[in-house]
Amino acid sequence: MPGIRHTFEADLHRVDEILLRMCELAGEAAGDATASLAACDVALAQRVIDGDPAIDALHHELEERLLHIIARRAPVATDLRMLLAALRVGADLERMGDLARHVAKLVRMRYPRPVAPGDSRALVLDMGSVAVRLAALTHALLESHDIGLVNELIGVDDRLDHLHRTLLSSLLEPDWEHGVEPAVDLTLIARFYERYGDHTVTIAHQVQFIVTGSLPEPRPREVAGPARQKIVVPR
Amino acid sequence: MPGIRHTFEADLHRVDEILLRMCELAGEAAGDATASLAACDVALAQRVIDGDPAIDALHHELEERLLHIIARRAPVATDLRMLLAALRVGADLERMGDLARHVAKLVRMRYPRPVAPGDSRALVLDMGSVAVRLAALTHALLESHDIGLVNELIGVDDRLDHLHRTLLSSLLEPDWEHGVEPAVDLTLIARFYERYGDHTVTIAHQVQFIVTGSLPEPRPREVAGPARQKIVVPR
Repeated sequence: MPGIRHTFEADLHRVDEILLRMCELAGEAAGDATASLAACDVALAQRVIDGDPAIDALHHELEERLLHIIARRAPVATDLRMLLAALRVGADLERMGDLARHVAKLVRMRYPRPVAPGDSRALVLDMGSVAVRLAALTHALLESHDIGLVNELIGVDDRLDHLHRTLLSSLLEPDWEHGVEPAVDLTLIARFYERYGDHTVTIAHQVQFIVTGSLPEPRPREVAGPARQKIVVPR
Repeated sequence: MPGIRHTFEADLHRVDEILLRMCELAGEAAGDATASLAACDVALAQRVIDGDPAIDALHHELEERLLHIIARRAPVATDLRMLLAALRVGADLERMGDLARHVAKLVRMRYPRPVAPGDSRALVLDMGSVAVRLAALTHALLESHDIGLVNELIGVDDRLDHLHRTLLSSLLEPDWEHGVEPAVDLTLIARFYERYGDHTVTIAHQVQFIVTGSLPEPRPREVAGPARQKIVVPR
């Protein structure tokens, strides 16, 4: 029934629009949060915080639309898996917005003191720019369904994990001279960026699943703890 | 069609069984991870880490069952909302297992050094026992759908947030004499427990939504940052 199929495609088109817009906003939030950290710009940090409800509202619209599509169309098999994957992707994008907001909140909390003193600043800004790159790759993947982007995205996330390891280790070097409070802040900020990246990997796997019908074997993802030993970071 | 309804109930019964079992395992994981931290028991920490795949396997079974129920029954309205809520609850329970595992990984990473030195130890153990209490309340709520438990659970989660605030603040007291590394570890561990609690609140809201068809107004949840100022903790 091409007519019905066509209308179903129209439903999916709006779902894609919402996901792409959420991804744009989550990427902008990560970029602005990082810029507010770089410049100790509390007004920009506040704009990131104030912008998060727009992502939440899109997430709510997405959930309602998906619910109505499933109820009205009673999709099966691939279509249903695709709709449930979109539900999952939306939850990941909403969370990415939260994590960018938490970075901005720490910038605001410490203002006018910079949250990232000394050499740690460059590492944090690198984590932020890699997070923005991951959001851009996620957007391209959601738009194109080009599975070739999945491995690229995973490779970029590995860079984020490496920066995370390096930053945590730097807090424990003998030459760390900034004391406990910045170390606590940086532990949280690094964690926020690292989780942001994990969500983009989860989204990439969802898209891969939609397109190929199968998922890669889960990769154990190691990150150095504050010490030399290793812990697996949450996915 | 009571016959079909009956079979639908049978489908839901297995979904409930899986959710309850996942919640049991997530609660046990939090309890054992906390006990391994208390006793610096690396073997127990390892058992928590080794036990997590069982929760992941149940989560996978849950997702597949829900997919097949939706595809076969084409539920609408309340039934569909309930099934999608179960999907969400399963994701939260799976994540709670991960967070308990991360606590155990830090215990293993630092062994034989205790991750929580001095006075911080009692606070961390309190966070762990409150987390276990939250898992028990979540289990009771999933089993009984007694909405009276929602506010009790939220109240207990507020205690967890208070302990989180107190622990972060204690790292910055002048009498904190344990240096940066334990402060970084405790920042992460406190974060893991606090997120664990947040997931139980999300589950409680899902159950409330299933039963009442409406959600409470989201409460802004403040937590003191390492300093006296406040930041909102991620939901």
